[in-house]
Amino acid sequence: IVNGFDGNGFKGISVHHVSARVPVSAAKLKARRQRWNVRASEMSKNTLNPIRAIVDGMKLTPNPEKPMIALSIGDPTVFGNLPTDDSVLQAMKDAIDSHKFNGYAPSVGYLQSREAVANFYSQAGAPLEAKDVILTSGCSQAIELAISALCNPGDNILVPCPGFSLYKTLAVSVGVQVKFYNLLPEKSWEVDLQHLESLIDDRTTCLIVNNPSNPCGSVFTKEHLRNILAVASRHCIPILADEIYGDMVFPSCEFHSLANLSSDVPILSCGGLAKRWLVPGWRMGWILIHDRNNIFGSEIREALVKLSQRILGACTVVQGALESILNNTQAEFYQSTIGFLKSNSEICFAELSTVPGLNPVMPSGAMYLMVGIEMEHFPEFQNDVDFTERLVTEQSVFCLPATAFEYPNFFRIVVTVPEEMMVEACGRIREFCARHYRPLSQESNDLDQ
Amino acid sequence: IVNGFDGNGFKGISVHHVSARVPVSAAKLKARRQRWNVRASEMSKNTLNPIRAIVDGMKLTPNPEKPMIALSIGDPTVFGNLPTDDSVLQAMKDAIDSHKFNGYAPSVGYLQSREAVANFYSQAGAPLEAKDVILTSGCSQAIELAISALCNPGDNILVPCPGFSLYKTLAVSVGVQVKFYNLLPEKSWEVDLQHLESLIDDRTTCLIVNNPSNPCGSVFTKEHLRNILAVASRHCIPILADEIYGDMVFPSCEFHSLANLSSDVPILSCGGLAKRWLVPGWRMGWILIHDRNNIFGSEIREALVKLSQRILGACTVVQGALESILNNTQAEFYQSTIGFLKSNSEICFAELSTVPGLNPVMPSGAMYLMVGIEMEHFPEFQNDVDFTERLVTEQSVFCLPATAFEYPNFFRIVVTVPEEMMVEACGRIREFCARHYRPLSQESNDLDQ
Ligand SMILES: Cc1ncc(COP(=O)(O)O)c(C=O)c1O
Ligand SMILES: Cc1ncc(COP(=O)(O)O)c(C=O)c1O
Repeated sequence: IVNGFDGNGFKGISVHHVSARVPVSAAKLKARRQRWNVRASEMSKNTLNPIRAIVDGMKLTPNPEKPMIALSIGDPTVFGNLPTDDSVLQAMKDAIDSHKFNGYAPSVGYLQSREAVANFYSQAGAPLEAKDVILTSGCSQAIELAISALCNPGDNILVPCPGFSLYKTLAVSVGVQVKFYNLLPEKSWEVDLQHLESLIDDRTTCLIVNNPSNPCGSVFTKEHLRNILAVASRHCIPILADEIYGDMVFPSCEFHSLANLSSDVPILSCGGLAKRWLVPGWRMGWILIHDRNNIFGSEIREALVKLSQRILGACTVVQGALESILNNTQAEFYQSTIGFLKSNSEICFAELSTVPGLNPVMPSGAMYLMVGIEMEHFPEFQNDVDFTERLVTEQSVFCLPATAFEYPNFFRIVVTVPEEMMVEACGRIREFCARHYRPLSQESNDLDQ
Repeated sequence: IVNGFDGNGFKGISVHHVSARVPVSAAKLKARRQRWNVRASEMSKNTLNPIRAIVDGMKLTPNPEKPMIALSIGDPTVFGNLPTDDSVLQAMKDAIDSHKFNGYAPSVGYLQSREAVANFYSQAGAPLEAKDVILTSGCSQAIELAISALCNPGDNILVPCPGFSLYKTLAVSVGVQVKFYNLLPEKSWEVDLQHLESLIDDRTTCLIVNNPSNPCGSVFTKEHLRNILAVASRHCIPILADEIYGDMVFPSCEFHSLANLSSDVPILSCGGLAKRWLVPGWRMGWILIHDRNNIFGSEIREALVKLSQRILGACTVVQGALESILNNTQAEFYQSTIGFLKSNSEICFAELSTVPGLNPVMPSGAMYLMVGIEMEHFPEFQNDVDFTERLVTEQSVFCLPATAFEYPNFFRIVVTVPEEMMVEACGRIREFCARHYRPLSQESNDLDQ
C-alpha cells in the first residue's frame, strides 16, 4: 500500500490513485464496513526494533549447569554494583519535599533546569543559554525530536555502522531513509570519511555522529572530529551529535564535544542523565542547540518547540532535581564509575586478546567493548547470531550479536557487570572458543613459508 | 510539496515524480548544496497548537489596578490550594529509597506497576490483566500511541467539539484528518448522535470520546454512553476513550467507563495520574486495552508495544511508586478534591447565571465550566477571543476563549482556583458584562407581546 501523506490531513494523491485503479461500488464499501476490521497502522508496522527482532529469534536456553551471565544489557544498574550517587537520590527527595514540582512545566522544561544544563555544558567555543536547551523524556526523545524536526519523508540521514539501532528505528518509521557510513575497527572505529562523503546526496538532511560510541566504546580525537565537521561543512549538512556518553572516557584520553570544535556547522547535541549519572529509567534527556551562525535560525528552534508540545517532556520531579544533580555531584563519583569501566574493559580485553579466533577492540570510553569473530575459524557457526546463541546454550553467557548494530561477525560486551562476573564470563568464552576453533589448513602452510 | 511516504525508508513515488517534472542538472544540484539551507520538516510545521496560536495572538495586558486572576490554566497545582496527598509523595520517596527503580523498565512499563493499574481499573464487565496495560509518559503519550497505532495518513478520526485540542494536533501532524462531531450544550453537552453518525465514512478509523470532558466538565449517563457505543458498533469503529478525568465526578452523578458498557466495541482507554492525583508534571499515563471480542487481537497490541519502544515511557520512580499510589491513597483525598471542585463550580455557576448576556453550563465533573456568550448583546466584541482579551485589559481576569476548542462564543473557566479568587473573578466578570451589555432593541418588543 502506498500512503498519501500530506501534512494538511487530507487524502494524498497516491490514495486517489489506488481508488481509481480498484473501483469499488458504494454498496460494496458499505458492506465491508459492517464487519470489524481494525488494522495496525503502517507506521507501527514500520517501527522496527532490530535488537528485539534478533534476540526474539534466538533460542536462548542456558546450560543448566552454569548460572547465566548476561553481558548484553546496556543498563548499568542491573547488577547493583554501580549505584547512582546518594546526592542524586537526595536531590530527588528534596524536589519532592519542596512541593514545587508537581504541576506542568513548560513543554521544553523549566527555565531554571534548562539554565542549569546550559551552564553545565557551556564551553568557550560553544556557549549555551537556557533558550538553547530543550529537556526531553530521555535521550531517545531528544533524538526523535531532532530527526522529526530536520527530516521529511524521502530525505535520508547518515548513520554510523556499527551504531545504536534507535536511529534507524525512528527514521524508517517516519519514512526517512537511512544510509550507513562505516566505522573502521582497525582505526579504533574512526569514521571512514571517504565512504561517509560518498553517501551524501541532495536529500541528505542530517549526519548522526555518536561519540563516545555505543556499541564500540570508541572516543574520537579532536582531529578526527574536525575532519568529520569538514565533511558536514563542505556539504552543508547539520549534525545530530549523540553525546549521551559524553565525558565518560578513560583518563588516557579526552572527550571533545563536536559543538566546541565547530565554527559553522549547526549541531543538535543530544544527551541526558541515563549513563553518566546511572539512572536510565528516569527518562531525563536534552537537546543542546548549537547554532552560532544562525543557520538553524528560529525555524528549527520553533520546530523543536512545537514538537515538544505533542506529549510534553521529562518528569517534573527529575527536572526539579536537575540543577542540584548537575552542580552537587562530586568528581569522585564520575571518576569511580570511569575507573571501574576502564578496569573491567582492560580485564576483558586482556583475556579475550589471547583467545584464538577472537579480536577484541579496546575501548576508550562509554561502557561497551566490541569483539570480532574470525568466522572462518568457527565453521560450525553461520554467523555472529549463531555463535552467540551457542555461547548461551553451552556456557550460559549472553553477548549481543553485532548484527543488531548492522555489523555482522562481531559481538558486543557490556562492561558494567561486576568484575568477578566479567572474569568468569571471559573464562567461559575462552573455553567455548577453544572447543569450536578450527585452524585453517592453509595457515600451517603460511607458517612454513 | 507532495511527500512520498513509504515505510521502507526509500524515496516515494511522488518524489521521483517531482524530480521528473523539474529536471535539474547535476551541476546545479551541487551548487545548491554548497549553501546552508536547513528547513524545518513538514511534520513540525503541521504540529499546530491552537491554544498557543490563539493565546500568543492575544494582547494580554492586565489592568494595573487589579491583580491578575488566571482562570485559564488546566493545572490544578498552580495556586497551591490543591496539593496531592502526602501518601503519594511518600510513595515516591519510598521508591527512591528502595534503589530498585533507577534502571530501564520494559518499554510498556514494569509488570508489577501494570498489574497494579489492571487491578485498580478492572471491572466485572471489563476485566483487565497486566498484559492489557501500557504505561506511557502522561496521558498525552497514551493518546499519541493510540492514534499512531490505529490511523494511517488519509484516514480520519472523529473528535468532540468542543474538545481537547491535542487530538487534532497529534492527528494532523501525522496526516490524519479530523472530523468534529458536535456536543450539545443544551443537553448537558451530550453528543449529537445523528451528527456523529453522519460523519463516518470508510476511512474513519477511530472515534474519540472524552468523558468526563475537558472543556465542558460534562459527565455522560450510562444510557448516553450506550448510544455512543451503538454508533461505533454499527459502523465497526474502535473507540479511544479519553478517561483522564474518570471518577472525578460530583456526588450527584456517577462515572461509567465506556469499556464496562461495551460488549463488542474494542476500546483503548487512556488515563493517568495527572488530574485525579493532582500531579500532572509527573508524566504518568496509561492505555487500558479492552478487547473482549479479540478485534484488536495481537495486531494492535503489538503495534502499541512497538510504538512504545520508540522513546520508552514513564519515569521509573513514578512507576515504582504507582502500586502504592493507587492502593494507599485514602478515599478522603479524592472526596475532598471533588467536594472542592463541586463547591467552586456551584459558586461560579450561581454567580454567572444571573449575569445578563452569559449562559454558564453547570458541570458534573472534571475541573472546567463552559460559559456561553450572547455575542449579540456585546456588539463591541467580534468574538470570544476579543471578549476574553478585553476582560484581561479591564478586569485582569483571564479565561480561555473556547475558539481554542473549536467552539466560538464560549469561554472556559478552570474551577481549581481558590474560592476567594473564584468569587472575586466572578464579580469582576459581572462588572465587565454590565458595562458592555447592550439589550437588543427587539427584545423590549418581545416582552411587550
Ligand atoms: C548511543 C545512545 N544514544 C541514546 C540512548 C538512549 O538514551 P536514553 O535512555 O536516555 O533514552 C542510548 C541508550 O542506550 C545510547 O546507547
Ligand atoms: C482531556 C484531556 N486528555 C488528556 C490530557 C493530557 O494529560 P497528561 O497531562 O497526562 O498528558 C489532558 C490535559 O489537560 C486533558 O484535558
